[in-house]
Amino acid sequence: MIKKLMDEIRDKKAPVVVGLDPSPSFLPGFLFEEAAKNLPENASALETAAETVWLFNRAIVDAVADLVPAVKPQSAMYEQFGIPGLKVYEKTVRYCHEKGLIVIADVKRGDIGSTSEAYAAAHLGRIRIGEENIPVFNADFATVNPYLGTDGIAPFLKVMQEEDKGIFVLVKTSNKSSGEFQDQIMADGKKLYEKVGEKVSEWGLSSMEGAYSNVGAVVGATYPEEAKILREQMPHTFILAPGYGAQGASAKDLKPFFDKNKEGVIVNSSRGIIAAYRKEQYRQFGETGFADAARQAALDMIEDLRKEVEL
Amino acid sequence: MIKKLMDEIRDKKAPVVVGLDPSPSFLPGFLFEEAAKNLPENASALETAAETVWLFNRAIVDAVADLVPAVKPQSAMYEQFGIPGLKVYEKTVRYCHEKGLIVIADVKRGDIGSTSEAYAAAHLGRIRIGEENIPVFNADFATVNPYLGTDGIAPFLKVMQEEDKGIFVLVKTSNKSSGEFQDQIMADGKKLYEKVGEKVSEWGLSSMEGAYSNVGAVVGATYPEEAKILREQMPHTFILAPGYGAQGASAKDLKPFFDKNKEGVIVNSSRGIIAAYRKEQYRQFGETGFADAARQAALDMIEDLRKEVEL
Repeated sequence: MIKKLMDEIRDKKAPVVVGLDPSPSFLPGFLFEEAAKNLPENASALETAAETVWLFNRAIVDAVADLVPAVKPQSAMYEQFGIPGLKVYEKTVRYCHEKGLIVIADVKRGDIGSTSEAYAAAHLGRIRIGEENIPVFNADFATVNPYLGTDGIAPFLKVMQEEDKGIFVLVKTSNKSSGEFQDQIMADGKKLYEKVGEKVSEWGLSSMEGAYSNVGAVVGATYPEEAKILREQMPHTFILAPGYGAQGASAKDLKPFFDKNKEGVIVNSSRGIIAAYRKEQYRQFGETGFADAARQAALDMIEDLRKEVEL
Repeated sequence: MIKKLMDEIRDKKAPVVVGLDPSPSFLPGFLFEEAAKNLPENASALETAAETVWLFNRAIVDAVADLVPAVKPQSAMYEQFGIPGLKVYEKTVRYCHEKGLIVIADVKRGDIGSTSEAYAAAHLGRIRIGEENIPVFNADFATVNPYLGTDGIAPFLKVMQEEDKGIFVLVKTSNKSSGEFQDQIMADGKKLYEKVGEKVSEWGLSSMEGAYSNVGAVVGATYPEEAKILREQMPHTFILAPGYGAQGASAKDLKPFFDKNKEGVIVNSSRGIIAAYRKEQYRQFGETGFADAARQAALDMIEDLRKEVEL
C-alpha cells in the first residue's frame, strides 16, 4: 500500500493528505438545514448532525479528489456523533474509495495482542464469521499507538501482509505536550521517541515495498528538529506529518521530513483546508462556498510545499 | 464516580470487574441460531454476529449483575462487527446501567487536545448540537492512553468535572511486551511507567473524591512488583488491574495492589469469566449453560480474592 500511496503522491505532485475532521464548529449553518430536508421529521439531533457531516465531507471530497492522493478521517470526530456518526464514517471511507482516494484511518488504536487483532480486523482487515471473511471499515492505513509494545503492533503487521495495507505508528506527535513522555531521555542518552522510532523501523522490515515500508511513523510537522533525527534514523520509514497550518508548522518546517529524492512524507492539514472558509484569506467564498474554499486552500498548500521543497 | 465505584465494591465485597470482550471464538454456536431467529432473513453476517453478541452479553450481565460492581466492555470487540457491533456496544452500556452496573469503557483513546475533546464527549460526556447537550455512548469510566501527554488528558479531566465520571490511564499494561517502552530506564534512574505514574497522580489532584481520585491507572495484575512501587508512589490513584486468570495472574499477585484498608483496586477478568464454559473446570454447565458457568467463575474469582487478600 505504501507503494500505491507514493505513486499517487508522484502523479499528483502533492504530498498532501486532507484531514476529514468534521468538528461541529466547522460545519456551516446552512448545511444543517439541508441535512434536515434529507431526513424524516422525527430525526434525532445526532442523526441531523451526522447527515450534515456527510454533506460536508462529500462536498469537500468532491472538491479535492483530483488534487490530493489521500484523506485522513479522524475517528473521534465521528464517534462523537454516536452510531449515526459512525455510519457516516463508514460511508465516507466508501465514498473516498469510489473517488480513487487512499484512506488513512486516524484511529490511534493500540492494545494487548488479542484486542489489537480485533482493531486490525475492524479498521484494515476482515472478520471471520462462520465461513465468511468480511471486511469491516476497510481503510487503507490506520494510525497506531505504540505504548504497549510489539504485542499491540503484531496483529496489524499480520493484517498488512494478508491485505496490502499499512500503518503509521505514533513516534513524535504534533501537540505541545508531546514531549512530556516522548522527549524523556533514557539512561543511554536517547530520547523515548528515538527508541520508538528504532522499533518502528524494525517492525517495518517485515513489510517492505521498494525503498519504504508499509509501517510508517507519525511525526508532527511542528517538530522539524526531531524529524531531522528521525529521517536519518528511519531511512525506510514513511512519515505522516500532521500539524501544518492551524497547528503552526510551515512548509519550511517540513524540509527535513523529505528524503534526498524529495519523497518519504505526506503532510496532513485538517481545519486549514476543510474550515478554510472561516479564514480571512478565503472569506470571499462565503459559507456556501466552503468546498471551493477548501479546494483553494488545498491548492495553496500544495503550491507552498512545491515551492519550499522544490518538488 | 470513584466514590460510587468504591461504595459498590464494598457493598458487594467484590473488587471485580467483568470484561465484556465478546471475541467471536467465545460465542456459543447455538446462540448464532437464536440470533438468526430474531432477525429478518436477509440480515447480514455482521448483523447476525452482533445480535449473537447482544444475546451473549445480556445473559452474562443477568448472571453476574448481583455479584460485581462493574463491567468493562472492550470497544475493539464491538468495532470488529462494524456498525451492528457498535449498536450492540451502545445497547450493552445502556442495559448494564439499567442493571445498576458501573460501566468502564475500555477504549484506550488518546490524541491531541481537540481530538481528545471529541473522544471525551463521545465516551463519557455530551456533544453540543445547537441548543442541545446530548450524551453519546455515556459510560462511567474510560481507559486513556498517555503517550501524547497532558494535552490528550485535559479534555477528559474537564468532562469528569462536569459529569462525575472517571478515567483509568495506562501506566503499566498487562501484556508481555509492555516493558519494551514502559520499562525503559530514564536518565534519572526511573522507569517510564513510573514517570507516567507520577503524572497520573498529578492529574488526579484536580478530581479527588475522598482518599482517591477519579483519575485512576491501569496496572497489569501480571506485574505485582511494579504494582508495589506504583501503589506507594500513587497513594490516591485507584488501580484497574487486568490480567487475572487467562493472562496468568493469580490472587496472590494482586496483594500489592491493595492499600492498607484493602481497597484501591478493581481486578478485571474477561475470558476467564465470560468464556468459562469452555474450561475443563466448568464443563458441566455445557454450551447452553454459558451464563451459569460465567456466574460460577465470577463467584470463584471473588472467593479467591477474598481469601487471599482477607477481604
